[in-house]
Amino acid sequence: MSNALDTLKERLGEVSDINSAVSLLHWDQEVYMPPKAASGRGQQLATLSGLAHRMFTDAAIGDLLRKLQESDGLSPDDAKLVSEATHDYDQATKVPESFVQEFAIAQSKAYEAWVEARESSAFKTFQPHLETMLGLLRQKADLLGYEGSPYNALLGEYERGMTAEQLKTIFGELAPKQGALVDRIVNASDQPDLAWLDQEWNPDTQWNISLEVLREMGYDFDAGRQDKSIHPFTINFDTKDVRVTTRIHEKELFSGLTGSIHEGGHALYEQGFLDSDRRSVLGQAISLGIHESQSRMWENVIGRSQPFWNRYAPRLQAAYPGQLDGRTPEDFYRAINHVTPSLIRVEADECTYNLHVIIRFEIELALVEGDLAVADVPEAWNTKMKEYLGLDVPDDTNGCLQDIHWSHGSMGYFPTYALGNLYAAQLFETIEEALPDLWTQVEAGDFAPLLGWLRKNVHEVGRRNTAVELIENVTGKEPSADAFMRYLEGKYLPLYGLRD
Amino acid sequence: MSNALDTLKERLGEVSDINSAVSLLHWDQEVYMPPKAASGRGQQLATLSGLAHRMFTDAAIGDLLRKLQESDGLSPDDAKLVSEATHDYDQATKVPESFVQEFAIAQSKAYEAWVEARESSAFKTFQPHLETMLGLLRQKADLLGYEGSPYNALLGEYERGMTAEQLKTIFGELAPKQGALVDRIVNASDQPDLAWLDQEWNPDTQWNISLEVLREMGYDFDAGRQDKSIHPFTINFDTKDVRVTTRIHEKELFSGLTGSIHEGGHALYEQGFLDSDRRSVLGQAISLGIHESQSRMWENVIGRSQPFWNRYAPRLQAAYPGQLDGRTPEDFYRAINHVTPSLIRVEADECTYNLHVIIRFEIELALVEGDLAVADVPEAWNTKMKEYLGLDVPDDTNGCLQDIHWSHGSMGYFPTYALGNLYAAQLFETIEEALPDLWTQVEAGDFAPLLGWLRKNVHEVGRRNTAVELIENVTGKEPSADAFMRYLEGKYLPLYGLRD
Repeated sequence: MSNALDTLKERLGEVSDINSAVSLLHWDQEVYMPPKAASGRGQQLATLSGLAHRMFTDAAIGDLLRKLQESDGLSPDDAKLVSEATHDYDQATKVPESFVQEFAIAQSKAYEAWVEARESSAFKTFQPHLETMLGLLRQKADLLGYEGSPYNALLGEYERGMTAEQLKTIFGELAPKQGALVDRIVNASDQPDLAWLDQEWNPDTQWNISLEVLREMGYDFDAGRQDKSIHPFTINFDTKDVRVTTRIHEKELFSGLTGSIHEGGHALYEQGFLDSDRRSVLGQAISLGIHESQSRMWENVIGRSQPFWNRYAPRLQAAYPGQLDGRTPEDFYRAINHVTPSLIRVEADECTYNLHVIIRFEIELALVEGDLAVADVPEAWNTKMKEYLGLDVPDDTNGCLQDIHWSHGSMGYFPTYALGNLYAAQLFETIEEALPDLWTQVEAGDFAPLLGWLRKNVHEVGRRNTAVELIENVTGKEPSADAFMRYLEGKYLPLYGLRD
Repeated sequence: MSNALDTLKERLGEVSDINSAVSLLHWDQEVYMPPKAASGRGQQLATLSGLAHRMFTDAAIGDLLRKLQESDGLSPDDAKLVSEATHDYDQATKVPESFVQEFAIAQSKAYEAWVEARESSAFKTFQPHLETMLGLLRQKADLLGYEGSPYNALLGEYERGMTAEQLKTIFGELAPKQGALVDRIVNASDQPDLAWLDQEWNPDTQWNISLEVLREMGYDFDAGRQDKSIHPFTINFDTKDVRVTTRIHEKELFSGLTGSIHEGGHALYEQGFLDSDRRSVLGQAISLGIHESQSRMWENVIGRSQPFWNRYAPRLQAAYPGQLDGRTPEDFYRAINHVTPSLIRVEADECTYNLHVIIRFEIELALVEGDLAVADVPEAWNTKMKEYLGLDVPDDTNGCLQDIHWSHGSMGYFPTYALGNLYAAQLFETIEEALPDLWTQVEAGDFAPLLGWLRKNVHEVGRRNTAVELIENVTGKEPSADAFMRYLEGKYLPLYGLRD
């Protein structure tokens, strides 16, 4: 049996190595690749991705997995490895290669149409392609199988164990509460002063500050690096090579830094997998929601807190001589937590962000379940934007065409952004109990206790738990919006001089 | 038949894609990879290299090649593609995987021993490993097959078509002539002034100058980029993605720039393959010697010429205000062509370089043919250094342990460096006839005519000729040392105020 296990581990390790090369090809494409290399790179990515898929779905791996499932001499970790690999194998083999190819072709056409539609703000251009993608997504759901809503099959690719039914309950509770809070904030008389931010901020200084903060957070620069890209991202080739990117705008003091902190949170998660899980499915993220909980916790709960700015406000003042005179840490804290409903999700603040996600979830669910026609997406979008955020959508570019996801055939992905916020708040209530001196430590730049807690309770778990199991194990409660709403109200009511 | 051809091309294309990923993994390792990633990267490289080898040596490719060889409906290019791929396939399949693994293990041990031996200048530490490598190299020669000397099998991996017998003739003629020239130069009374170079040269300025020169040479930055690494190199992932690296020393004005020009010469070759040869064996370098002819021609024949420095001396003077006042272009020309016998090959000038190579060739040949025992390498080395360069070798670190090649099991590689010099000179005589205004153009920074000639006569040929065929086709003569000696004497005798 140990022979079969070793063979399995070696074969999965090889697939992992190829996937690492695929990731490096992607990383390079985003940060350093010269423009004319694009078509060659596309070819290389197609070849290697296809190869990794073929190697992983090889019948010999299925045989090994079946053999090992029947064995009862495996250690708990090895048994988990076999069951997780079996899950991935089943998912991968349920979808025939002909379907994967058809999907990829439709994807690429839909992406092109989306780019064009977005430029001319013409949903009609995108509509037939979204119809095709939706048809394929429904087929995919059938191929993968599901209980309850077909949406569950799609959601399960990103957030295994979570269901549309659960999301409806959680989001159904969250949306009105969050909407009411935003309403109060928007109407509060005590709005933050933002005029002092309207300056130019030296990009090199911004870059150096972002490196300093990453270092203090505990990001290991001997096992990673930061580069610049158009869209910030985190990518890993190995637990010992987890890289982040950021983008710097001269007119914006905070966006590069918060981008770095956000990606740093993702990266600390991936640098925190166990050494013994290298090249194994156990040394992988549980779900996108858990991944996002790590980035959001560092970015928002820590990086937009008053103690954090008690530490970093003076540093920024020293780094930009003459530009920040007379500003208090509270000025920074209030400015970086400025709440304002806006049309664009990726620019949304903590208080409004989930509302953007919920709009997308409701539309996706209705599409997949057949309750909404693709042609009616713009109207549904605009109605919901008015209802949840009080905004009129001027055109589809600033409305239902703003995100790339649907053109890629990603449905079930958006909810994981909101789940990340909820998980982060829920985990953080437990952390505050476990680490009573946490905020003093943050103010002193001592992030080691927090990181140590996350390592032990989240990172090192790898894929040994599902997201729901992890949240329940660690917090003693099932995932809900309660902690998040307590967090939001506890932070934003005083921040805007509002009574509870 | 066109079906078999398409299948072959697609399968070779896939192997090419994997090799591109292997190259990117190497590039990243040298320029950006964080240190802790080393072991994971080693694993990824082993997996992908092994995979590329297995895919290429698959029996199905052998079947396709046999089938296509018998067909007579192929275009000349396709017929060439089949015969070149067959050559590679035969070479790759002659060596069993068990031997490749044994070789890789011995390589890795020999490399470690070499590092240790070099640090302590103790050849004895390296000796048993070099004996093992030599035994394996002889086995490899037997596996590959050869006519004449077993050395030919090893040489053929780098310079197909060239033989030990030819090299003995060429080098046998070259060594005494080159030695005699060096003797005269060393004893010349008119030595260049180098004292003015002993300053600090801003690294950013050096970097910017190297980019400017690369651009003028015609290197396409939309299909490549320059980065920094410890050892300069050129690497390609695709004709549209050919990257160079350089290293900059603050105390050296010329070494970064000449490194960039050298690598730029390599890169122009690889950017010059035909678009229609992308992912094909035809879109590859003929041999290391031809590759080196391109880098050496740009670095030495062009980049160390008087017309080149007539152009760039004033630019360097403007770039380093106050540091180069009163220097003439001729001062630059004389300094950058300073000849001095030295112990270390990689620091050698144009006049002494080949002598270093010939010493290594003679030792390698004697080892492989069984005329020299490994234990006697240091003595043979030191004797030859005295004979060819007039130098006493103080220790093995500065002697027979200085190069990495033998620890990698590379024998037959060194001669290609010298061949590069000879090919460059031979090609250049033809170029000067074809482009009578060449030197005026160089002085004006107009490298397009030279590059155009190289594109047409060398780069675009790809693997349609062997090196010997190419040289004969283009110059009308077989490879020899004649042109190179004419070049050296024509340049260095006047430079040192010597009569012919």
